[in-house]
Amino acid sequence: MEKKDVIGIVGAGLIGRAWACVFARADHPVQLWDPEPSLRARMPELLRAMLEEAGNDPAAADRVTVCETLEEALRGAALVQESCPEILDIKRELFARMDQSAAPDTILASSSSALVASEFAAGLPGARRCLVAHPVNPPHVIPVVELCPSPETDAGILSRAEAIYAGAGQVPVLLNHEIPGFVLNRLQAVLLAEALRLVSEGVCSVQGLDDTIRHGLGRRWALMGPLETISLNAPEGLHDYMRRYGPMLGRLADDGAGAEAFSDRAADIVGAAFPHSGPDSVRARTAWRDRELAALDHHLHSRNAKD
Amino acid sequence: MEKKDVIGIVGAGLIGRAWACVFARADHPVQLWDPEPSLRARMPELLRAMLEEAGNDPAAADRVTVCETLEEALRGAALVQESCPEILDIKRELFARMDQSAAPDTILASSSSALVASEFAAGLPGARRCLVAHPVNPPHVIPVVELCPSPETDAGILSRAEAIYAGAGQVPVLLNHEIPGFVLNRLQAVLLAEALRLVSEGVCSVQGLDDTIRHGLGRRWALMGPLETISLNAPEGLHDYMRRYGPMLGRLADDGAGAEAFSDRAADIVGAAFPHSGPDSVRARTAWRDRELAALDHHLHSRNAKD
Repeated sequence: MEKKDVIGIVGAGLIGRAWACVFARADHPVQLWDPEPSLRARMPELLRAMLEEAGNDPAAADRVTVCETLEEALRGAALVQESCPEILDIKRELFARMDQSAAPDTILASSSSALVASEFAAGLPGARRCLVAHPVNPPHVIPVVELCPSPETDAGILSRAEAIYAGAGQVPVLLNHEIPGFVLNRLQAVLLAEALRLVSEGVCSVQGLDDTIRHGLGRRWALMGPLETISLNAPEGLHDYMRRYGPMLGRLADDGAGAEAFSDRAADIVGAAFPHSGPDSVRARTAWRDRELAALDHHLHSRNAKD
Repeated sequence: MEKKDVIGIVGAGLIGRAWACVFARADHPVQLWDPEPSLRARMPELLRAMLEEAGNDPAAADRVTVCETLEEALRGAALVQESCPEILDIKRELFARMDQSAAPDTILASSSSALVASEFAAGLPGARRCLVAHPVNPPHVIPVVELCPSPETDAGILSRAEAIYAGAGQVPVLLNHEIPGFVLNRLQAVLLAEALRLVSEGVCSVQGLDDTIRHGLGRRWALMGPLETISLNAPEGLHDYMRRYGPMLGRLADDGAGAEAFSDRAADIVGAAFPHSGPDSVRARTAWRDRELAALDHHLHSRNAKD
């Protein structure tokens, strides 16, 4: 078997650990570091549990070396996936350290969802090898990863990163330039705003709103994206669809809610529908969700739906 | 086994036939009528094929009686599902005919996606038993149905309709009042607008955009609606989430695209990504989609994900 690239994991919270699992189960040697020693100490067992929950072989955790220092985690790595708190000063400092220690060709990728590389890698000698690789929570059961370069990111670096993520079973989506929220969170934000407005106005219940997606649009969209979906919803294809439905959909979009929908009233209405009694029940429901996401991923793979 | 309600199906295009399958496979006697005799003549075979494609027993088609007249289809029916062209004059005339012929307690439900009951049932003596029951295309593989009453629709009728759809395996969502696009198409419209804008501006490719949903948000949303999803995405639940992310999401929502996104440019870009060569390839891809939707529905049922 071909020798797999060494992957560095910096930050071993939920997202970092999920990334470690992604690469370890794809046979990569993984070097993991977290600033917190008590978290490092729990590492083999946390990773094994995560792999098992996702229906993967827990022995893959054996490919993960827990490092005592940041520099050890970077040594010989082809790519480093950073998943630390999204605070600009912290990220800038961390990237400055990593840029100093890592070999010149090592790709430095951040799981950042809001900060962009032109912010946290600005002015670094190795800015060309820095980028955002934004996963969906959690990446070991949802494969998409948004790759967002800064204006300084080298095109070859971006291509190599794309190949590494794809080779490990993820689905990389390339952004051509930086934009707030990248793609996924922009789509989520506009849908959430309208969802919150509809329940705030009493058009339907919170459960009903969720059902229109879970038992409706979400079914389609787990198989086929929204643009391919509409390309099939008129007999003659996409232009036919836009002709028939574009004006009506445009009117609905113009009427879509904005920031005002994220109100205290909306929070109270939705909060009352999901009265999680605290972190324990959030964790339990989250564990259920991740098990189902893993099962869904296996189902889709088995159907060759990923064509 | 309890005697199941007779269901009338008026209009046997794709949606009407899918509804016939929904009720027939749930053991309802179905009385189907379409104005087009040549379509009526093809009926047993079209229904058997549809059932088989969806992994259902094609013998369920035997429960469907093809009627020669509209009045026969209505006779003794507890509920009539109408799926005819969405042209107001046609629907008003059809509902006037049905209101005249159907027994007073028969529920008259329309699959309408744009017209509302206060438009097509206005002034009818039986307006109290008329409503919209809007499915997702196609209802035999996607279970959600939006029930939208007019101000005249009787609450008991609405409850009975809800029970009938739920009993047949669908997921009814009650709207409390009429609103353009109901719920589902409003959510789809705002997401589509932003999706079209992002690809029009070259932020990412059409395939990439679709991947963020298909291999990202769509995965979550096939298991759990968007509001329950956010209730789990912060340690302390929904209010915690809104505190942490509300402002940022609000800014993104304010920046969401409107009607201008449904442009010729967008149509060209998306059309080029999905160059279906005509109705045949649309049909073939649609058949694939419906088979996968049926398989997904079976997978979710088998996981008891429908909790």
